[in-house]
Amino acid sequence: MRTGSSIGVLGGMGPHAGFDLAVKITNQTRAATDHEHLPVVVLSVPHTIPDRSTFLLDRTQPSPIPALIDLAQQLERAGAGAIGIPCNTAHAAPILAPLVDALAARGSKIRVVDMIQETVRHIQETYPAVQRVGVLSTTAVYRLRLYADALKAAGLMTVAPDESMQETVVNPTIFDAAWGLKAQAHPVTAAARAHLLEAIAALKAQGAEAIILGCTELPLAVPEPAVDGLPMVDPTVVLARALIRETFPDKLRPLPAVRPTSSVPDV
Amino acid sequence: MRTGSSIGVLGGMGPHAGFDLAVKITNQTRAATDHEHLPVVVLSVPHTIPDRSTFLLDRTQPSPIPALIDLAQQLERAGAGAIGIPCNTAHAAPILAPLVDALAARGSKIRVVDMIQETVRHIQETYPAVQRVGVLSTTAVYRLRLYADALKAAGLMTVAPDESMQETVVNPTIFDAAWGLKAQAHPVTAAARAHLLEAIAALKAQGAEAIILGCTELPLAVPEPAVDGLPMVDPTVVLARALIRETFPDKLRPLPAVRPTSSVPDV
Repeated sequence: MRTGSSIGVLGGMGPHAGFDLAVKITNQTRAATDHEHLPVVVLSVPHTIPDRSTFLLDRTQPSPIPALIDLAQQLERAGAGAIGIPCNTAHAAPILAPLVDALAARGSKIRVVDMIQETVRHIQETYPAVQRVGVLSTTAVYRLRLYADALKAAGLMTVAPDESMQETVVNPTIFDAAWGLKAQAHPVTAAARAHLLEAIAALKAQGAEAIILGCTELPLAVPEPAVDGLPMVDPTVVLARALIRETFPDKLRPLPAVRPTSSVPDV
Repeated sequence: MRTGSSIGVLGGMGPHAGFDLAVKITNQTRAATDHEHLPVVVLSVPHTIPDRSTFLLDRTQPSPIPALIDLAQQLERAGAGAIGIPCNTAHAAPILAPLVDALAARGSKIRVVDMIQETVRHIQETYPAVQRVGVLSTTAVYRLRLYADALKAAGLMTVAPDESMQETVVNPTIFDAAWGLKAQAHPVTAAARAHLLEAIAALKAQGAEAIILGCTELPLAVPEPAVDGLPMVDPTVVLARALIRETFPDKLRPLPAVRPTSSVPDV
C-alpha cells in the first residue's frame, strides 16, 4: 500500500479494544457502499507487549516501549499514515512520550493520535458549556490521573469517584471475576450495568455534567449516548473520529445533533 | 513479525465482516489474559477490491483477483502464516482457485483457509447425524450454488428456499434499504429478525436439520446457537476456529456440548 494512505490500529491491549476501534472507525465513516470505506490496518500482537500497568508501577519491570515502537513501524511499513492506540494506560506520559520521541528519532513520519487529548478536545468542542467532567476508569488510570491532568490543563474540572466507590463499585465493574466486563461482556451482566449506573449517578450528584467512560470495556455496559441527561463520552469513538479527521477528513460522519446538557432544563 | 507466526484476515468485503472475523478469532481462543491471545493482522482496504458479484456475472468487468493476490502477499510480509477471507462470494471457484494458484506460483507459503469447505467439514464433524442442510444466503450465492455444491460433494443434501422465498424473504433480510441488515444492524430491526425466522421455519418444514447462515450479516439477526431445535451454523465462527486450528491448535477453545439435533426427540 502507498505510504501514509491508511489508518493504523496498534491493537492487542487487549485484543477486543483493537478490533472495537476498527469497528468504530467503520461506523464513523461517511460511506454508502463497501468501496467507500477507508483503508485500515490492525496489528494485534498481545504477547509481544509487556503489561503497561506493571511497568508504570515499577520501572524495573519490562518496558512495553520497544514493542510499541516496533509495531508502530510495522504499521507504517504496511501503509499507515496515522495510528491510534486503543489502550488508556499506554497513554501515560512515561510510555507515550518516549514512543513518540523514538519514532521521530528514527525518521518515522507516522502520527500517533492521542486518545486522551482528543477526548478532552472533543468535550470542549461538543459540550462547550460543560465545566465539570466525571471520569470512570480502572484504578490504575485513576491513580495515574491520566484524564484528570489532561482536563486540568484544558481548564476543566474532574469529578472522580471517592476511593471507596472506585474500589468497590467502578473497578469491580471492569475486573470482577464473576460478573465484571473483562470476564463477561457478551452479553454484559446485569450486575455490571447496575454498578456502572450507580457510579454515574454518584458522579452526577457530585456535579458532573458529562462522563468519560475511560476504560475500553465500559461502553459495553452503557452503550447509550446519554444517561439521565449526562452525555457519555466513549474515548474509542473519539479516537476513531480523530483518526478519520487526520487522514480522510471529508469522510468523517457528522456528529448527531447535541442534546442539551443537564445545565439546560429539559422541556 | 516472524514469517508465518500470525493469523491474517483479508478483510474489507465488507469492512464489518473483516473485523467481525477478528473478534470471533478472539472469542474462540483459549486465553485467560490479554497476553495469551493470538497474533492477528487485519488488512481492510475495500476500495482496492473490485466487486466480486459483478465480476462473476460478467467476466469482462474488473477482476478482484489481482487485488486479492496483492493483499494476501502483504499479509504474508506482515507475518501471516494462514489467512481467512470473510466473504462468501470471494470463495466462488472462478475467484478462489486462481488466487490460490497465483500465490503458489509466486512462491508464497501462505495457506488460504476455505470458509465454505470448512463449514461443510464442521457440520459433518459436529452434527454427524445431519443429512439435510438448510442454506440461507444472498441471491448471488444462492445462484452460484456455493454451499450447495460443497455440500453435495460431501454427500449432504441442500435444503434451499424456493425462488419466491429467496427473493421476497431472504434477500430483503440482507438488502432491504429500510430494515435490511446492511442498512440497519446495530440494533437489528424486528422486521429483519422476523423475516429470517420465517425462512428458517420454512427450511425446517422442508426437512432441514441444521441451517448455514451463509451471509456474513445473517448471524447478527439470529445470534443464538439453535432455533427451534436446529443448529445455526455461522461460517465466520467456523473460519475463525479453522484459522486457530491451522496456526495454534492448542489455543482452540473447545466447542460447547452439542445439543441433540431435531432428529432426536427432546426429553
